[in-house]
Amino acid sequence: MVSLDEIVAHFGGDLVGNGEIAITSLAPLGNAGPGQLAFLSNSKYQAQLAETRAAAVILSPTAAAACPVAAIITPQPYLYFARVARWLQPPLQAPRGIHPSAVVDSAIPGSACIGPNVRIGADVLIGENAIIEANCVIGSGVAIGADSMVYPNVTIYDGCRVGARAIIHAGAVIGSDGFGFAREVDGHWLKIPQTGSVIIGNDVEIGANTTIDRGALEDTVIDDGVKLDNQIQIAHNVRVGAHTAMAGCVGIAGSASIGARCTIGGGAIILGHLTLADEVHVSAGTLVTKSIAQAGTYTGTVPFMAHDDWLKNFARLRHLDAMADKIRALEKRLARFENLQEKD
Amino acid sequence: MVSLDEIVAHFGGDLVGNGEIAITSLAPLGNAGPGQLAFLSNSKYQAQLAETRAAAVILSPTAAAACPVAAIITPQPYLYFARVARWLQPPLQAPRGIHPSAVVDSAIPGSACIGPNVRIGADVLIGENAIIEANCVIGSGVAIGADSMVYPNVTIYDGCRVGARAIIHAGAVIGSDGFGFAREVDGHWLKIPQTGSVIIGNDVEIGANTTIDRGALEDTVIDDGVKLDNQIQIAHNVRVGAHTAMAGCVGIAGSASIGARCTIGGGAIILGHLTLADEVHVSAGTLVTKSIAQAGTYTGTVPFMAHDDWLKNFARLRHLDAMADKIRALEKRLARFENLQEKD
Amino acid sequence: MVSLDEIVAHFGGDLVGNGEIAITSLAPLGNAGPGQLAFLSNSKYQAQLAETRAAAVILSPTAAAACPVAAIITPQPYLYFARVARWLQPPLQAPRGIHPSAVVDSAIPGSACIGPNVRIGADVLIGENAIIEANCVIGSGVAIGADSMVYPNVTIYDGCRVGARAIIHAGAVIGSDGFGFAREVDGHWLKIPQTGSVIIGNDVEIGANTTIDRGALEDTVIDDGVKLDNQIQIAHNVRVGAHTAMAGCVGIAGSASIGARCTIGGGAIILGHLTLADEVHVSAGTLVTKSIAQAGTYTGTVPFMAHDDWLKNFARLRHLDAMADKIRALEKRLARFENLQEKD
Repeated sequence: MVSLDEIVAHFGGDLVGNGEIAITSLAPLGNAGPGQLAFLSNSKYQAQLAETRAAAVILSPTAAAACPVAAIITPQPYLYFARVARWLQPPLQAPRGIHPSAVVDSAIPGSACIGPNVRIGADVLIGENAIIEANCVIGSGVAIGADSMVYPNVTIYDGCRVGARAIIHAGAVIGSDGFGFAREVDGHWLKIPQTGSVIIGNDVEIGANTTIDRGALEDTVIDDGVKLDNQIQIAHNVRVGAHTAMAGCVGIAGSASIGARCTIGGGAIILGHLTLADEVHVSAGTLVTKSIAQAGTYTGTVPFMAHDDWLKNFARLRHLDAMADKIRALEKRLARFENLQEKD
Repeated sequence: MVSLDEIVAHFGGDLVGNGEIAITSLAPLGNAGPGQLAFLSNSKYQAQLAETRAAAVILSPTAAAACPVAAIITPQPYLYFARVARWLQPPLQAPRGIHPSAVVDSAIPGSACIGPNVRIGADVLIGENAIIEANCVIGSGVAIGADSMVYPNVTIYDGCRVGARAIIHAGAVIGSDGFGFAREVDGHWLKIPQTGSVIIGNDVEIGANTTIDRGALEDTVIDDGVKLDNQIQIAHNVRVGAHTAMAGCVGIAGSASIGARCTIGGGAIILGHLTLADEVHVSAGTLVTKSIAQAGTYTGTVPFMAHDDWLKNFARLRHLDAMADKIRALEKRLARFENLQEKD
Repeated sequence: MVSLDEIVAHFGGDLVGNGEIAITSLAPLGNAGPGQLAFLSNSKYQAQLAETRAAAVILSPTAAAACPVAAIITPQPYLYFARVARWLQPPLQAPRGIHPSAVVDSAIPGSACIGPNVRIGADVLIGENAIIEANCVIGSGVAIGADSMVYPNVTIYDGCRVGARAIIHAGAVIGSDGFGFAREVDGHWLKIPQTGSVIIGNDVEIGANTTIDRGALEDTVIDDGVKLDNQIQIAHNVRVGAHTAMAGCVGIAGSASIGARCTIGGGAIILGHLTLADEVHVSAGTLVTKSIAQAGTYTGTVPFMAHDDWLKNFARLRHLDAMADKIRALEKRLARFENLQEKD
C-alpha cells in the first residue's frame, strides 16, 4: 500500500487531488475500484474516463481536464504506469538449490534454482540467481546469464549462449538445427550440418513456444534488449538488432538481418537474406520480400470485407493486368478523338 | 460389434437395407470395407459413393437414392457419424494414482492419474478422474476441473484455472506472460508485470503447442465449449466467447474480444483491442484490422495463380491508385466530348 | 584437417591452385579466414568473392575466373559444400543405455540411448542406435526406426510410427488429435474420436515445435525424405509425398494431399481436402484455396510498400469491382462516339 504522494515522489509527474489517497493495486480504467490506480494511454478507452471508479488515474496533460478523480499527469502515461507496476510487484520467490530429481552434470552457483526433472548437461555455466524451472533441458556447453528466468519445458541445445536477465517462456526452443539442405540430382535432400550456435544478448525476453535455430556455419545472433513474443520462428544465421520487438507468430527466414529498434507486427514474414535498416516498422501480416534501407513503416496487407463483397472485388485481382491494358487502350482511342477535335 | 438396427435404435434416422448387418468399425467412404460403416457429408466425396465397399453409409436424404449399399438416412450425416463414433470408442484406460517419479506438492484425488516426471506445485486443485500425462508442469495455485485430460509436456503457469472435461494437447502453454512493454525514451523496453491470469471454462479443447498468455491486469478468458486447434496464439486480456472454434495457426492479439459461436479459419490474425460480434466467421488467412459488429462471413485474401501470371497482375497493385486516377481523367475527357456532342 | 587434394579425390570437381592447402573447417565466404574452405552459390554474395580471405572457395565454372584464391570448380557448389560439410562433421557421441531417471515400459536395444526423465510407454519399438533425448514422452505402441535422433521435450502419442534415420527436433508433437468436431443443433461442438495414427517414412526431419495430428479414421502419412521446418502444422489425414520440403510456419489443413518433391514456402497455408500434384512449388505467404494439378510455381501475395503509399493504393482494393464497371462504361461511351465518327 502506497500513497499517491509516495508514487509522485518516486516517479515524478503532477499530482491533481489528494496525495494521501492509498493505492493497493493497479487496475484497468474500465473496472478499477476504490484503492486502485488506473491509467489512460490508448485514446480508444477515453470514454471510460468519465465513469471510472478508480482512486486515481495516470494520464496525459491533454486528458487531465476530463478526469473525475485524482490524477497523476505525465506526458507518457503508459511508461509511468509500467514503472509503478514494476515497483509494486512482489519479488519473485524461488527456492535456492538443485531439486533432487534434476539431472545436473555441471557446477551450479548456490544462488541459482534448478527445478524438478531439469536436465543440465556438462560444461554449462549458470549465472548467479538464475532460475531454471521444471522439466527444462539445457544442453552441454550452454551459458545462461545471471538473474535469468527460464520457465518450464524449455529446450536449449548444446553450446548456445544466453545473456543476463533473460526471460525465456515455456516451450521455447533455442538452438535447433537450421533448415539447411542441398538437393541431390535425384531430388533427395542432403542435410547440411548446422555447426553454428545461437548467441543471445542481455535483457532479452523470448515468448512461449518460440523457436530460434542455430546457425549453419556462423551464429544466429539476438542482440541486447530484444523482445520476442510467442510462437515466433527465427531461422539460422538471422541477426536481430538491439531493442527490436516482434509480436506473435512472426517468421524470419534464414540469413535475414533485422536492424535495431525495429518492430515487427504479428504474423509478418521476412524472407531470407534480406537486410532491414534500424527503426523499420513492419505492419502485422505483411510479407517482406525485399530489403528495406530506410527507417519507416511498411505494409502489405489486403482489407477484409463481407465475404460476398470480397468475392466480387477480389476476383478482379486475377485481371488487374487486363484492366490496366483496357485503360491504356481507352486513353489511346480517346486521344485520337481529341486530336481530330483540335483539327476541326 | 453392433448391428445397424441397434445404431438406429440408439440415434434415430431411417434405415434402408438389412438392419442385421454387423458393424465392427467406422471408415472413410473411399476405403471402407466389409463390416465398416462410412458416411457422406462433404459433396466433394459424392463420387466415391457408387463404388463404396462399405457395409453401410450414413447420408442425407438427397444422397440416399444413389447409395449402392445399406444406408442410414439423416439430415445431418456428419453429426450422426460423430455420435456413432463416440459410442463405439473404447473408454480411456489410465492407471489411477501418482507415479513415483512425479514431484507433487498438492493433495490429489484418488481417482486422478498423475504421470511420470510431472511437476505439480503447491495449492493446486485437480478434479476427480483428471489425467495429467508425463512431463507436464502445473504451477502453484492452478485449478484443473474433473474429467480433464492433459497430454504430455504441457505447461500451466501459476494461478491459471481450467474447467471440467478439458482436453489440453501436448506442448500447449497456458499462462505465459503477455507481451507488454512500455518504451523508455532511449528505446529500451520496460517490461510490464503481467499480473492477470487465464480462466478457461468447461468443455474446452486446446491444441498441441497452442499458447494462451495471462492477462496484464485483468484475466484472459476462454469461455465454455471453445475449441482451439494447434499452434494458436492467444495474447493477453483476450476474451473468446462460448463455443467459438479456431483452426490451426490463428493469432489473436492483445485485448481482442471474440464473440460466441464464431469460427476463425486457419492462419487468420485478429488485431488487438478489436471486438467481434457473436457468430462472426473469419475466412482462413484473413487479417482482421477493424471490429466487426455484424454476424456473417468476412474475408480478405488474395487469389493465388501461376507465378508468371502473378508477376504480371500483382505488380499492378503498386499502381492501383494511379489506375483509379487514370479512369477519373478518362471520364472527364470523355464527358467534355459528350457535352460538345449535345451542343452540336 | 584435410587437404584440397583429398577433398577433390573424394568428391570430384576441378581443383585450381595448390592441392596441398590444408582445410581445418568450413566458413561463409564473407568471413572465412586461413585454413577455411568457403563456397559461392547464391549470386547475392558474388561481391564477397574478390575480398575473401578463405584458403579456397567451392564455386561454379562461371564464377571461377573471378576467384582470387584456390578454387574447387563444380556445377553444383552448394551440394558439393554439403557433402564436404557432412564428411568433416565429427560423429555424434551419445552414451548407450537407459538413464536411470527414465521411466521405460518397453524393451530397448542395447545400442540405443534413452536420456534422463524420458517416458516410454508399453509395446514401443525403438530401433538400433536410436537416441531419445531428455524429457521426451513416447506413447504406447510407438515405433521409432534405427539411427533416429529425437531431441528433448518431444511428444509422440500412442501408436504413431516413425521410420529410420528420423531427426525430430525439440518440442515437436506427433499424433495429437485432429481438429474434428460436428456441430450440435444448439451450437455446441461434438468431438469426433481421432482413431487414425501418424505414419512417417524414412529419412524424415521434423522441426522444433512442429505438430502433426493423427488421422480421424485413416492415418496422416508423411512419406520418405520429407523435410519439415519449425512450427509447421500438419492436420489430420494429410498426406505429404516423398522428398517434399516445407519452410517454417506452414499450415496444411485436414485431408489435403501434397505431392512428391514439392516445396512450400514459409507461412504458406494449404486449405483442406485439396490435392497438389508432384513438383508444385508454393511461394512463401501464399494461401492455396484450390487443388493444383500441374507442376510449377504458384504465388498469391501482395507487395509491401511504405505505409502511406499502401494506404492510398490498397484502399482501392475495396473498389476494384467498381473500377472494372467504370472501365466498361467508358468503353461503351467511347464506342458510341467511334460509331458516330464512322457515320460522319
